[in-house]
Amino acid sequence: MLTRIDHIGIACFDLDKTVEFYRATYGFEVYHSEVNEEQGVREAMLKINDTSDGGASYLQLLEPTREDSAVGKWLAKNGEGVHHIAFGTADVDADAAGIREKGVRVLYEEPRIGSMGSRITFLHPKDCHGVLTELVTSAPVESPEH
Amino acid sequence: MLTRIDHIGIACFDLDKTVEFYRATYGFEVYHSEVNEEQGVREAMLKINDTSDGGASYLQLLEPTREDSAVGKWLAKNGEGVHHIAFGTADVDADAAGIREKGVRVLYEEPRIGSMGSRITFLHPKDCHGVLTELVTSAPVESPEH
Repeated sequence: MLTRIDHIGIACFDLDKTVEFYRATYGFEVYHSEVNEEQGVREAMLKINDTSDGGASYLQLLEPTREDSAVGKWLAKNGEGVHHIAFGTADVDADAAGIREKGVRVLYEEPRIGSMGSRITFLHPKDCHGVLTELVTSAPVESPEH
Repeated sequence: MLTRIDHIGIACFDLDKTVEFYRATYGFEVYHSEVNEEQGVREAMLKINDTSDGGASYLQLLEPTREDSAVGKWLAKNGEGVHHIAFGTADVDADAAGIREKGVRVLYEEPRIGSMGSRITFLHPKDCHGVLTELVTSAPVESPEH
């Protein structure tokens, strides 16, 4: 079951400038940043609020690391803007399987690793009224005692 | 101060079909629907989660009521997809004034009425790295005793 808006993915040409825009304009700070070579992106997660399912909602700012990545091609065609939206779930495998059975194309055979060790998959935007839609299960939070 | 992702605004050609897609695929239900003649839209709000600032996050599905509305023109150019994102604040007037002072174009001189009696304004997407950005202050919740 999808229980939160996990993040809004925003494609940009220059991650550092875009991070600075969000900091200077709204006061949003970088919560986490990483490079995902498989996805071909440098990214920064800006945490906006916590959510009622125990998770949180973020902006995910994405700069392509190579022109032939999915985000690189999208940027070349569309320019900067909202690239995808993501819903959080406790069980991305079960939700992806259920959604596939309804005839919506799920882009990965098995979930892959996303931001902050999460497990993610994507739904085809043509099956989702034009919206590239991601499903996310966050990595387990390690107990501070262990 | 912006304290939550209030909603993601998604433009569609057929509101009823799009509402049905979100219900059948994810189980999201309509929380509220209305027609905003000033904005030229029929809309449905699907509540996804509550947020740590006492508000909530929604998907806002938007169908234009006339071709010359902002959403109608946007759909004709872009097709269905994410039209804007919205951040929630307790004081849209103060935030809009502060952001205007930073040189970002605020589209309305004074906030206007948005979904569910909220007060809203928009920031120019060219000043926001391609993202049409809305600021929202929810209508006060009336006490059930009065």
